[in-house]
Amino acid sequence: MAATAGAPPATEREHEEQDANLPTLSDVRAAAARIAPYLRPTPILSSRSLSALVSERLGFPVELRFKCEIFQRGGAFKARGAVNAVFALSDEEAARGVVTHSSGNHAAALALAASLRGIPAYIVIPRTAPECKLRATQDAYGGKVFLCEPTLAARESAAQKLQQETGAAFIPPYDHKLVAAGQGTLALEMLTQEDGEKDGGDGNAPLDALVVPVSGGGMLSGCAVAARGLRGSSIAVIGAEPKGENGVADAKQCLESGQLIKGLEKTQTIADGLQANLGPRVTWPVIRRNVDGVLTCAEHDLVEGMRLVAERMKLVVEPSGACGLACLVGGDGGDGFGRLAERHPALKAAVDRAKRGEGAVRIGVVLCGGNVDMEWFRPEWWKVAAA
Amino acid sequence: MAATAGAPPATEREHEEQDANLPTLSDVRAAAARIAPYLRPTPILSSRSLSALVSERLGFPVELRFKCEIFQRGGAFKARGAVNAVFALSDEEAARGVVTHSSGNHAAALALAASLRGIPAYIVIPRTAPECKLRATQDAYGGKVFLCEPTLAARESAAQKLQQETGAAFIPPYDHKLVAAGQGTLALEMLTQEDGEKDGGDGNAPLDALVVPVSGGGMLSGCAVAARGLRGSSIAVIGAEPKGENGVADAKQCLESGQLIKGLEKTQTIADGLQANLGPRVTWPVIRRNVDGVLTCAEHDLVEGMRLVAERMKLVVEPSGACGLACLVGGDGGDGFGRLAERHPALKAAVDRAKRGEGAVRIGVVLCGGNVDMEWFRPEWWKVAAA
Repeated sequence: MAATAGAPPATEREHEEQDANLPTLSDVRAAAARIAPYLRPTPILSSRSLSALVSERLGFPVELRFKCEIFQRGGAFKARGAVNAVFALSDEEAARGVVTHSSGNHAAALALAASLRGIPAYIVIPRTAPECKLRATQDAYGGKVFLCEPTLAARESAAQKLQQETGAAFIPPYDHKLVAAGQGTLALEMLTQEDGEKDGGDGNAPLDALVVPVSGGGMLSGCAVAARGLRGSSIAVIGAEPKGENGVADAKQCLESGQLIKGLEKTQTIADGLQANLGPRVTWPVIRRNVDGVLTCAEHDLVEGMRLVAERMKLVVEPSGACGLACLVGGDGGDGFGRLAERHPALKAAVDRAKRGEGAVRIGVVLCGGNVDMEWFRPEWWKVAAA
Repeated sequence: MAATAGAPPATEREHEEQDANLPTLSDVRAAAARIAPYLRPTPILSSRSLSALVSERLGFPVELRFKCEIFQRGGAFKARGAVNAVFALSDEEAARGVVTHSSGNHAAALALAASLRGIPAYIVIPRTAPECKLRATQDAYGGKVFLCEPTLAARESAAQKLQQETGAAFIPPYDHKLVAAGQGTLALEMLTQEDGEKDGGDGNAPLDALVVPVSGGGMLSGCAVAARGLRGSSIAVIGAEPKGENGVADAKQCLESGQLIKGLEKTQTIADGLQANLGPRVTWPVIRRNVDGVLTCAEHDLVEGMRLVAERMKLVVEPSGACGLACLVGGDGGDGFGRLAERHPALKAAVDRAKRGEGAVRIGVVLCGGNVDMEWFRPEWWKVAAA
């Protein structure tokens, strides 16, 4: 690790290079302007009964505000990053099309973004992806779909082959500056819609915490950059992740150990959108610096979350979409949130105020997607949740 | 039918008395002011894919705008009428409480309205009502629930007994001026939100038709009065009703024959909120004069409607709530709508314009309720729809 005279040390050089790859609040704002002609802001809804339920579980008054990315075009937040990345291409690059591999929502989102720009999209999808996501990619948005085996190696090699054949630009599902910046626009909306906090404005009843599902980390890193840029350390940014049948919960492991743990299995979970691990280029470096903690939940918590959102809010969310709520009502929600608040001065102050009866802790929760095959709305799941 | 000298003929006298019982646009406006402190306007959402689907079925371009009463307090439109009726009571009347019989949504709505005013609600519910509606009435809103056999006679006699014992005011589920006027506020919102048509304003891209589910007719009559008052004959007001297993479709029968047909069976349908027949005092007289036609649908259309709303809009609707869309995508939708347009000059003009490629026919559809037991979201239903 000794520095060579006349040049910055290798680690510093790497750090600088890495920094240029990382999105900033300016990138999120630029993304918001770039996607505005194509994607409208999604609504923020509340639910008295779910706020009451989470208040009971956490032990102090809470007001939940749900960012409804289920109403985003394509039924998930993914259109934000894909449209940002596709419309940032030069005309020459764009003409050759775009290529990716994805288990579903990014696939449909990239096909949608490409169709909006009028260019081809080549999409590698594992055979096990939900039927509704496959249909959306191919039938609704005209993506050219190539099915592959459900392993990362098979996905990557199929995408690489397509890229070589077509010259299309590879737009990865999450570990990419423009994709992460695009996803961050949902937090920008949430904090400006929610807070009345326009550029330089004062803010009004701001959120104390933002709970964002994490898989590869595109959404969490983009949202963290936006929240940190707008609110500094006055807001807690919290990831939400399923433990999975195999107990991986890689984002939590990485954040607690302070390093990107390589070679972890992918998470085995019904949340097909939350199986990936953090990316080394963009998402882990951003999350390491800007995320305050990760809450986890069990599989039955995801089902209970879906059921609660359907029953109390009349909204359809996919298992991934329910993960934020699932981590608050079940999982390590109560304890986990409390421990996290102990380490975060602004959140701790909000919790203490709430415990004294001076208002509620305001928590933003992202309902990030609603693309669930309808036959998944099945009674067996509700039974799992009730057990 | 001969007139007695010196007095108006009996039929005229009846007519006048009846008229005083009927809601007007003024009553709907008064209801809107009365409920405003307690109930917020519900959002109006659109769906590209459902508009495209209905356009294909009807044979001309259509733009659907969905009034989301699923987001109303209590999960259905019923809170509007109940809050209007409860807050119109004098303090003395209110102190003795309110009583009703209902298969579900009116029960919960009246319990909610009574809890908002801080008075007791005595609610007779048939044993066959969905569990979620029973729980909402009793647990969420503190109504005093009395279960009875699922017949109209049993419901009425139980409610009458409670009324005699307590002196509570009877608030019927639909055949009541204040209840109908309250439900009409949803159309008032829809036409003013939708049209930019404020009192005396010009209107901007107004709806050509409004499709409202009909059972006892409280919602349809209230909406018809509001639409007629605001828009005269420039909007078509259309009921939507399931044929039911027993093929009753009483609103359609009554409207086509021009008279209230008595002694019809109640509709046997999975839409537990659409089993009643039109009321003689308020709803039939209003509907007879103000409604342009009724579309019907089969049971499997209701399931298909629920599935489409869940899949394409990410919203949970109960079978009754899906009825408007079900009558457009299935049932006698295509033919029925076309025949109806032939008889309605303004709607016919809009259809002709759309067929010439000059814009779309704008149809408002009320998603009137979302209170479905979660175990009802079952795969068997989707299979019924696919068959």
